Amino acid sequence: MVRASRRRRVTRVRVQDDGAIDVDARADTIAGEEPLELRLNGRPFTVTMRTPGDDFDLAAGFLVSEGVISSMDQIATLRYGPGVDADGRASYNIVEVGLAPGVALPDTSAERHVYTSSSCGICGTASIDAVTKASSFDVSGDRLRLTAAQLLAMPDALRAEQSLFSSTGGVHAAGLFAVGPDGPELLCLREDVGRHNAVDKVVGWALREGRLPARGTVLQVSGRASFELVQKAHLAGIPALAAVSAPSSLAVELAEEAGITLAGFSRGRSVNLYTRIDRVVTD
Amino acid sequence: MVRASRRRRVTRVRVQDDGAIDVDARADTIAGEEPLELRLNGRPFTVTMRTPGDDFDLAAGFLVSEGVISSMDQIATLRYGPGVDADGRASYNIVEVGLAPGVALPDTSAERHVYTSSSCGICGTASIDAVTKASSFDVSGDRLRLTAAQLLAMPDALRAEQSLFSSTGGVHAAGLFAVGPDGPELLCLREDVGRHNAVDKVVGWALREGRLPARGTVLQVSGRASFELVQKAHLAGIPALAAVSAPSSLAVELAEEAGITLAGFSRGRSVNLYTRIDRVVTD
Repeated sequence: MVRASRRRRVTRVRVQDDGAIDVDARADTIAGEEPLELRLNGRPFTVTMRTPGDDFDLAAGFLVSEGVISSMDQIATLRYGPGVDADGRASYNIVEVGLAPGVALPDTSAERHVYTSSSCGICGTASIDAVTKASSFDVSGDRLRLTAAQLLAMPDALRAEQSLFSSTGGVHAAGLFAVGPDGPELLCLREDVGRHNAVDKVVGWALREGRLPARGTVLQVSGRASFELVQKAHLAGIPALAAVSAPSSLAVELAEEAGITLAGFSRGRSVNLYTRIDRVVTD
Repeated sequence: MVRASRRRRVTRVRVQDDGAIDVDARADTIAGEEPLELRLNGRPFTVTMRTPGDDFDLAAGFLVSEGVISSMDQIATLRYGPGVDADGRASYNIVEVGLAPGVALPDTSAERHVYTSSSCGICGTASIDAVTKASSFDVSGDRLRLTAAQLLAMPDALRAEQSLFSSTGGVHAAGLFAVGPDGPELLCLREDVGRHNAVDKVVGWALREGRLPARGTVLQVSGRASFELVQKAHLAGIPALAAVSAPSSLAVELAEEAGITLAGFSRGRSVNLYTRIDRVVTD
């Protein structure tokens, strides 16, 4: 059962050089997307739309990104829930996480996504503090060093391993590279219709491998660098985030504050460095 | 005060043909991203990270996408909240919406994002029903008709008007096209670091203009077509969604069920049609 993708009938319409229209109906491969329900200590916690596969990584990484856990021993149980599909087969669309004794449950009240203080509102320089989740890890002192050429090679290295993108053209990817004496090594690659999910799957893999904080690594992503992706890197103890496309202003501000190296527009021959450029050797 | 973008110092690293590395530090324009808090009837409802601008459209469209409202008369008040920044100036990062009498507040309990039924879990054929929000509008009978050439022209028409993308290279866009006797007309274009926000801003504009359901229109987006974007189109009564990139499997399934025309990989000379292809004239 391959649920990471689906076959669908597609009608392809193409305008020829002479203006004639060519219509061609055939089966095509489409990126799979299904809801995943995450249950925490027996209670519904969230539903995310994701590409099936690596669901335990996704669940674990999501909890890291939410600031609920930062090490694997904080998870007591991690398993699929009892859901079945219309034919009575296991659906694999529910993951149940049991937290270890003493790990605090997150606040799931209506206010949990609201971070205003009474004095400042959500605004200006106060905005980062207002929306930032505290990380267990300080990455500002991470001794990561890599060359510009090594950084520039990461998007191609990621793309070469993206099997789902190759068949569907429709998923994001995130990859974690360890930078050792022999150069960068791709530790983990995850694909998903959602870019946040792809990063959560990588973070969850690292957590389950006992690799958090992920010192000396670079998180390479296929799309843009938003505030939330920088935050995910911070919560996982990853000292560098590189994106193929543009960063947002708040992504740059958080990277600066947390001491994360942020790279954008990483496209073969050139890359933009926004923060902590001292980690990238250019001579 | 231009908050849709920010100036930041950027170090651009470029590898020359001879392997030498060129390093160039300069100021660059970056897409703005700030949190927006949406308050509903005086209570915190959600916080979204967005590009400042068109905030009332965003707030109104978000409420349409959540299934809370479907016409402007369901909103009694729409205004900025009292937040101020560190310098005491209005932050414009809080929007307060007051619903008209009789409009039901959404359930904001912890379970509101969980849609399981006791019998099926979230799974297989049941999954769409489980996560789909009911729309006030039936778009399956919409008489929209357009030619393939008209559909293919929309991404370029959108791109030509994307001022923020031109300066930052870092935002998504959504555009609503009305298809009349003289061909498609771009009614509304919105840009945002978040693709969901860009669509919500367009939907909110249409709501505030009294144009919902948006009959006879095409929603063109700059990225992929996920389940949630198809759902936003459905809730706004938009009969066609066209994406520059790939759709997901659940996007196709929901489009089929709702009777929405779904187009993907719309790239100048060719486009893929997934559902309700009868609305696209190819001869």
